[in-house]
Amino acid sequence: MATSEESIVLLTDGAASLLAAKTATSILRYRGENVVAVLDRSRAGQTTDQAFGVGGDTPIVAALSDVPDATTLTIGIAPPGGRVPEDWRAILIEAAGRGMKLVSGLHDFLSNDPEIAAAAEKSGSVIYDVRRNNERDLAKAKDLRDDCLRILTVGQDCSIGKMLTALELIKGLTARDVDAKFIATGQTGIMIEGDGCPVDCVVSDFVNGAVEKQILANQHHEVLIVEGQATISHPAYSCVSAGLLHGSTPHGMIMVYEVGRENVHGVEHVPLQPLPKLIEAHEMLAGLRMPSKVIGIAMNSRRVSEEEAAVERERMRGELGLPIADPLRHGVDELVDAIEKLRAEVKSR
Amino acid sequence: MATSEESIVLLTDGAASLLAAKTATSILRYRGENVVAVLDRSRAGQTTDQAFGVGGDTPIVAALSDVPDATTLTIGIAPPGGRVPEDWRAILIEAAGRGMKLVSGLHDFLSNDPEIAAAAEKSGSVIYDVRRNNERDLAKAKDLRDDCLRILTVGQDCSIGKMLTALELIKGLTARDVDAKFIATGQTGIMIEGDGCPVDCVVSDFVNGAVEKQILANQHHEVLIVEGQATISHPAYSCVSAGLLHGSTPHGMIMVYEVGRENVHGVEHVPLQPLPKLIEAHEMLAGLRMPSKVIGIAMNSRRVSEEEAAVERERMRGELGLPIADPLRHGVDELVDAIEKLRAEVKSR
Repeated sequence: MATSEESIVLLTDGAASLLAAKTATSILRYRGENVVAVLDRSRAGQTTDQAFGVGGDTPIVAALSDVPDATTLTIGIAPPGGRVPEDWRAILIEAAGRGMKLVSGLHDFLSNDPEIAAAAEKSGSVIYDVRRNNERDLAKAKDLRDDCLRILTVGQDCSIGKMLTALELIKGLTARDVDAKFIATGQTGIMIEGDGCPVDCVVSDFVNGAVEKQILANQHHEVLIVEGQATISHPAYSCVSAGLLHGSTPHGMIMVYEVGRENVHGVEHVPLQPLPKLIEAHEMLAGLRMPSKVIGIAMNSRRVSEEEAAVERERMRGELGLPIADPLRHGVDELVDAIEKLRAEVKSR
Repeated sequence: MATSEESIVLLTDGAASLLAAKTATSILRYRGENVVAVLDRSRAGQTTDQAFGVGGDTPIVAALSDVPDATTLTIGIAPPGGRVPEDWRAILIEAAGRGMKLVSGLHDFLSNDPEIAAAAEKSGSVIYDVRRNNERDLAKAKDLRDDCLRILTVGQDCSIGKMLTALELIKGLTARDVDAKFIATGQTGIMIEGDGCPVDCVVSDFVNGAVEKQILANQHHEVLIVEGQATISHPAYSCVSAGLLHGSTPHGMIMVYEVGRENVHGVEHVPLQPLPKLIEAHEMLAGLRMPSKVIGIAMNSRRVSEEEAAVERERMRGELGLPIADPLRHGVDELVDAIEKLRAEVKSR
């Protein structure tokens, strides 16, 4: 987790695409002041802005020795399945050997790797496996309060913008003097926020309970924006999404989709569900616990032009009859309005 | 896992109710030939038939020393949260000390308890923690075959009869010379069947994949009856149920409910969802992967008389328009007919 004194190197070596480097790009976007370099042999010499479209002039280097003063090495990609790529081990052992803190969100814990652990022990280096947890609390469906509004960002797929939308909503609410807290539920969100729960690495019996615990601990805020994970229609990850939906028991949901994406990321032979059907399914599943509606749409329009995005926005607004915006292109004002409207409604019940 | 040479003692000491002793009663029902005694200080002197309504004259004893020839001690209750009750530890250490095999389905692994593990190591005793797993495969949504019919037992709640229904359906199909295999997904089912996957103890990212793996490994059978867990409306366990639903991608579902049960077991302030709504929700959620219908209802009528059960059966048959039977009271012929009808339909597609 980043602290203000840290100087972080982000490891993205071997990332096949920007999508694969989403941890790195998100940390550059939301904790960029702490990042001194990205380590990526195939992109060395570029700036992060050139390579990833974010992070300004932050340099991309080819070796750890290029950044002798860096204190932290953070793994900046999330490979499917969460394993440590074999050709990273030398870099990780080098970093541990020189006493750097290692931060990883992978399912394979770095601290379980004997060589990395030995190097860290010798130098006194700290290994922080963000996904490590021992959650054992069952959800009790009790003590949830209506004076703290719970909003969950849900989506049509993985890696589509649920965390980004949540973080932008926090900024938008904070700008209106609303006391809003980001509930991080994934490794990158936790690295950015400094707390949260890595729900996809919790034993399934305890997922709902782990999420509920995050809610109960934060009800002194006026609004909680809970980071969604995957989608309830995802062939591999629907377990996580369903537990998160019921564990957070949202008053309302913001649905995130990407313009032009047609198939499930990583399971490309499976088509995405159409948004109207997916909205209905989310409302139905959430409603088994508590009535909840999708109150707005966050569109991710990174693949299309400004003009195409504007056309798409109006088309979808008409089709779905909901507030809609690309948080990065259009800001989140419309979505914050929808949240504030819901908050007023819930208060007056 | 029981083998034909084993002589098992089932530990139910402290079980507050029959429901809490469901592992014991199920092993008595489906592997009773291997059970020599139940160890339960509060019920000692009774037979298991007197105490639990199953297992005939199997004696209930107060101490391990009463059954000197027993080879296996199996924990027969499933306490909420899966922890080892403190006052069992002396019994478990005694059993390990005399070289008995210990079988446990608890979330707390016996092999992680230093004293129990030490006693077992000294005597050469084997500890089998049924829930221990290292599932790391993601579901791929590929290679599922339509010539192997997949049926999932789903339900209105936990501890309601999904495993029992699945096992009775296997018996019914086998009696008609259908090659049917039980896919165990919980600790008791695994103890009975000898294989399977403890889905509620799998890390959430890998639940769908762990279930899919069980399916892919068993498609040489004509029919798979997958044991359901909890329910997609359960405040604490919906994560497990949703992953199981999508991981197994059933061609059809059998819905299990209990006559007279109104609230969620263990979360009593939450009312159960009405069956029609729950059927709709299951079909909607399953349908995000593949169209699937609830094709029959298994009623658990243990709380009511024979006559009341008959009235309820006809009332629900009319209300839901589906085949319906209490597997223990009425047999499963009607439900097996529905499965065979669906199998013919899927074949002819």
